[in-house]
Amino acid sequence: MSFNTFGRLFRFSTWGESHGPAIGAIVDGCPPGLAIDEALIQPFLDKRRPGTSKFTTQRREPDAVRILSGVFEGKTTGTPISLMIENTDQRSKDYSDVAKAYRPGHADYAYDAKYGFRDYRGGGRSSARETASRVAAGAVARVVIPEVTITAWVSAIGGDAIDPEKFDPREIDNNPFFCPDPETAKRWEKIVDDARRDGSSVGAVVECEATGVPAGWGAPLYAKLDSELAAAMMSINAVKGVEIGDGFAAASLRGEQNADPMRPGNGEGPRFLANHAGGIAGGIATGQPVRLRVAFKPTSSILIPVDTVTREGEASEIITKGRHDPCVGIRGVPVVEAMMALVLADQKLLHRAQCG
Amino acid sequence: MSFNTFGRLFRFSTWGESHGPAIGAIVDGCPPGLAIDEALIQPFLDKRRPGTSKFTTQRREPDAVRILSGVFEGKTTGTPISLMIENTDQRSKDYSDVAKAYRPGHADYAYDAKYGFRDYRGGGRSSARETASRVAAGAVARVVIPEVTITAWVSAIGGDAIDPEKFDPREIDNNPFFCPDPETAKRWEKIVDDARRDGSSVGAVVECEATGVPAGWGAPLYAKLDSELAAAMMSINAVKGVEIGDGFAAASLRGEQNADPMRPGNGEGPRFLANHAGGIAGGIATGQPVRLRVAFKPTSSILIPVDTVTREGEASEIITKGRHDPCVGIRGVPVVEAMMALVLADQKLLHRAQCG
Amino acid sequence: MSFNTFGRLFRFSTWGESHGPAIGAIVDGCPPGLAIDEALIQPFLDKRRPGTSKFTTQRREPDAVRILSGVFEGKTTGTPISLMIENTDQRSKDYSDVAKAYRPGHADYAYDAKYGFRDYRGGGRSSARETASRVAAGAVARVVIPEVTITAWVSAIGGDAIDPEKFDPREIDNNPFFCPDPETAKRWEKIVDDARRDGSSVGAVVECEATGVPAGWGAPLYAKLDSELAAAMMSINAVKGVEIGDGFAAASLRGEQNADPMRPGNGEGPRFLANHAGGIAGGIATGQPVRLRVAFKPTSSILIPVDTVTREGEASEIITKGRHDPCVGIRGVPVVEAMMALVLADQKLLHRAQCG
Amino acid sequence: MSFNTFGRLFRFSTWGESHGPAIGAIVDGCPPGLAIDEALIQPFLDKRRPGTSKFTTQRREPDAVRILSGVFEGKTTGTPISLMIENTDQRSKDYSDVAKAYRPGHADYAYDAKYGFRDYRGGGRSSARETASRVAAGAVARVVIPEVTITAWVSAIGGDAIDPEKFDPREIDNNPFFCPDPETAKRWEKIVDDARRDGSSVGAVVECEATGVPAGWGAPLYAKLDSELAAAMMSINAVKGVEIGDGFAAASLRGEQNADPMRPGNGEGPRFLANHAGGIAGGIATGQPVRLRVAFKPTSSILIPVDTVTREGEASEIITKGRHDPCVGIRGVPVVEAMMALVLADQKLLHRAQCG
Repeated sequence: MSFNTFGRLFRFSTWGESHGPAIGAIVDGCPPGLAIDEALIQPFLDKRRPGTSKFTTQRREPDAVRILSGVFEGKTTGTPISLMIENTDQRSKDYSDVAKAYRPGHADYAYDAKYGFRDYRGGGRSSARETASRVAAGAVARVVIPEVTITAWVSAIGGDAIDPEKFDPREIDNNPFFCPDPETAKRWEKIVDDARRDGSSVGAVVECEATGVPAGWGAPLYAKLDSELAAAMMSINAVKGVEIGDGFAAASLRGEQNADPMRPGNGEGPRFLANHAGGIAGGIATGQPVRLRVAFKPTSSILIPVDTVTREGEASEIITKGRHDPCVGIRGVPVVEAMMALVLADQKLLHRAQCG
Repeated sequence: MSFNTFGRLFRFSTWGESHGPAIGAIVDGCPPGLAIDEALIQPFLDKRRPGTSKFTTQRREPDAVRILSGVFEGKTTGTPISLMIENTDQRSKDYSDVAKAYRPGHADYAYDAKYGFRDYRGGGRSSARETASRVAAGAVARVVIPEVTITAWVSAIGGDAIDPEKFDPREIDNNPFFCPDPETAKRWEKIVDDARRDGSSVGAVVECEATGVPAGWGAPLYAKLDSELAAAMMSINAVKGVEIGDGFAAASLRGEQNADPMRPGNGEGPRFLANHAGGIAGGIATGQPVRLRVAFKPTSSILIPVDTVTREGEASEIITKGRHDPCVGIRGVPVVEAMMALVLADQKLLHRAQCG
Repeated sequence: MSFNTFGRLFRFSTWGESHGPAIGAIVDGCPPGLAIDEALIQPFLDKRRPGTSKFTTQRREPDAVRILSGVFEGKTTGTPISLMIENTDQRSKDYSDVAKAYRPGHADYAYDAKYGFRDYRGGGRSSARETASRVAAGAVARVVIPEVTITAWVSAIGGDAIDPEKFDPREIDNNPFFCPDPETAKRWEKIVDDARRDGSSVGAVVECEATGVPAGWGAPLYAKLDSELAAAMMSINAVKGVEIGDGFAAASLRGEQNADPMRPGNGEGPRFLANHAGGIAGGIATGQPVRLRVAFKPTSSILIPVDTVTREGEASEIITKGRHDPCVGIRGVPVVEAMMALVLADQKLLHRAQCG
Repeated sequence: MSFNTFGRLFRFSTWGESHGPAIGAIVDGCPPGLAIDEALIQPFLDKRRPGTSKFTTQRREPDAVRILSGVFEGKTTGTPISLMIENTDQRSKDYSDVAKAYRPGHADYAYDAKYGFRDYRGGGRSSARETASRVAAGAVARVVIPEVTITAWVSAIGGDAIDPEKFDPREIDNNPFFCPDPETAKRWEKIVDDARRDGSSVGAVVECEATGVPAGWGAPLYAKLDSELAAAMMSINAVKGVEIGDGFAAASLRGEQNADPMRPGNGEGPRFLANHAGGIAGGIATGQPVRLRVAFKPTSSILIPVDTVTREGEASEIITKGRHDPCVGIRGVPVVEAMMALVLADQKLLHRAQCG
């Protein structure tokens, strides 16, 4: 069953396919009176925009967002905010290969199994183009949570991870990989370029940190902040793993190693001596930075032939021509940030609702 | 905001605290006419029951489930199924330490920050005792999906992982660790026992596989089967990471390594030559086994003193007396299975709803 | 599809059948720190309790409520509140007639058409006994909205309506009909008693007013306060009509007659010169009393034989023996009040969430 | 809290204001493979379109709908269907009166009380223009339920009701009032024209019948079909009352009068000898026609001055210039039909989900 809405109070719904006339999102539940205009949203879309370096897809679109409702005289009215981005660079290419046979790693076979047919043009609804709508909605979410600062970066590409010691947040926007370490960025150039030239692709890990999240946001169990974030991140195309705080590494620790000891703080709340928990205990924010890691698989669209079957069930092989990201995780950075913002905006309203 | 309900159509809601008179669950949306009674649910609770070996908590409770509604003459009526488990072994111990200071790694501080106070007896709502309700609900879910077989096991404890080559599913129930390899189980005995004797605890990784999931269950994007499963698993106490299929390992692969090639099958659907995707592509089941991994942090309740602060913000240290699991991941096995069953039962109804 | 949960943030779920061991409700999303105990809930259940006069069913049950979770040291913790009421007076009567043939006006045929079979003992899930759970949940809701005062009464029985001129709220609890006019109450005695003696039943209209609802609660369109209230009231057994403010009478008015003119007020907000709108404009409360009317059909269980068919489709006729309310609308009064409280508690949290 | 989505599985969300660039709807959860194009939706919008007679608003807009997503090669794909209608006839009139003072009967004061300010141009989000989005979504819903036929009509204007004996469904589309009796239509001409010439307005009652609804759709209690329909109808602008079947008239009946006796049927299900219940028993469809009545208040925008206050709280009076419907209930007919279709499409999927 199709559910294209995310969130409980601060909600957004996205629509649109890669090769339709446009894509978009509706943001519902936004508090009234917040200053929002297109100029505020556009920079986030620009960050995600394709065609900005040879390390991303060569599709070139301005991804210009229009606000169609919910804003009056520059302020949110509290009613649904409709955001639309026109598709302008859809090549009228030949999709007959993709229409006939299933691309392994893609949603092709699964869509056919579910729906009986599929829009095969550029992946249709399963195209990563959908994430532009999330980024637009996420820009609105950020306005709802001015107390929070969100930063994401790529921490590994093709298994080559950054050295945490060399982490410098000021470097993130200085290279085409959102890499916080210029030396690693250099190595990644070669990794990604090699993959691109081989007609292949590579996976990546994206990390995200939100500082300023007040202690108390979140909830126990089924609405655990960990759970909401995991659902949000895992809903992004190509994501196959999520860790909160130490994640899988915590499974190797002993209790006393994993505890985040507390000392009296200067202001509100205690001072924590560690943050293995990623800023969340019992599903509720502790006031520490909320930290998570997200695994992006390598782009499934590659020029290397892979064994497959046709819709009729006959053996075949397929290569996926087109303008693809050799590493879809790179452009995942603004998307992960957007999903973090969208979850936290929702959590802010939810906490205020129950606890005043 | 408190949300103690999980699922979209096949839904369950849990209630109850560690030290209240009882805990329970309501299962709503269950198809009518299914044969269910207490005897069918009890074995799953017995598998999770505390006190069965020295490697789990020494709390001893029968965890006998009662069906209070929704079943008539042995069959589900389609109305809410109320399941109740009485708490019988609540020691009237002294909780004044826990009431006064926050246990690091526990939800104590976060609860106080959110709600202004907390039920400190045995963790209250944040106690892993809540998972008994999930296991009971999960037993009902299994009846909804007879086509699916679900198996979970522990694949690592304290960083010591099983050798996948030695995986033998018949061994899982032959040792107190749900370990599919008897040799590894031997090693774990020592690891867990050492931790227990040190007053410490260890983390664990649980893996789960569901076979028989028909191609087509699931949905794109915000209701991606990956996303629903991640939310479900991450909602379990102590869980901090979830991987679908290869998960984070996929982030180190190249596209052609990560593809799951297809060959003509014998019956319905193609035959896949690999399952890096964990049986899910584009959020939709492919017909392959659905596979995931879950990281459990070490139990936070330990006898080793940890730095903390009191409710008044003064420096203190705390040890957590009581009868705790030295490795909470072990008893997580039936809980992970239950959550898998609950998600898949929901997905079956959702798919039927949209696609007939 | 079974949905036994009502509300968006302040939510409750009910379970249980007329002839099972118990019925109950879970209240989720309640703000923390509110003083609640059984003694606070019981009076509302007592008001609804059967067997208090010859004008209601002769089933006699204490309807004693137990709080099983969510309250610690007399205060709500913010986690789910489980409320349970045991069924104690289930007569082991012969239900073979009802099992074999459908009672017209009852849910019998519809349940069989939907589910393939049904729990025929005392109506099973469709019994008005379910409303006790609502009343218990409603008592909790009232604590969430101390600023609001809710009063309901019967305004017509069997077509005999009260004279609005003689409305005296102090009289409502002085007669077995919740009638605000003692003279009308006298007439109703005869109407209800005649129906009872004839083995028949009569319908009723219940009115409800909530004062103190702050201007601003509610929302436009799909979450119109009118819409939420209509859904709530129409979900009560035997209800077939809902009016907000003037309701159908407004359809006969001209625009200038239906306007509620405003004059400067003394304190917050304007003073309204009329309340045709029932305190709601554009779906949002105006600060005036919220007023609505609810139509209860006559009890379907009657001793007068009615034409029907058997499960096998053969012509038959049926009478419904048992201990039935001759006018189910009377005991609907505390239920309507409870649903009003439940909707308004939800609205309070929703408004706070979006507008701070 | 803003909730602009309706439905549980077959869901739609609307966005847009009277004086923004466009309005629209997203339909999510639609089954795949259904034939849909703009030409199929347009006739329903044309039926609702303003400016078609002197009895409706003189605003003239083509209300041309565009499908932006979710349809591929003429068939629904199972992904979100985005529908957009551009606003083309927004007069740049002077709204300073409305900006300064509150129009009684309108949402003006309530919006300000809730949100702190409002989009005052043409009513903004509270404009009945929003209903065009519902009608477009409703056209999609009809395709989901080909087994059902939905017909609505006006049954009373300004208190002048049709004679049920003279009901002729073929007449409904032969007059500008959707009146099933030409003689009554004549009388209404004068009533509406008088109101219009006086600068006033009149209320109306709309009735709707859905035939072909299979026995079994719907659910008990909180998802009672009566409740879903009541919520849907009450969510329409200007609606203040809903009756299912006999509605308030049932409150005047005795049990034996209100029963719908059954006789053996020819095909599936019994033959009912009456339909007081409006085709719904216990919240579940019985297979009889589903019938309901909806009360529309008179249009609040009138040229007759009404007492009011300014935003600053000073006494004032206001008249509402503009191009208004003298009887908003008339154009409510296609909207009521759309909401009926939207609820029933949702119910079809819900029933299929639970009961297969």
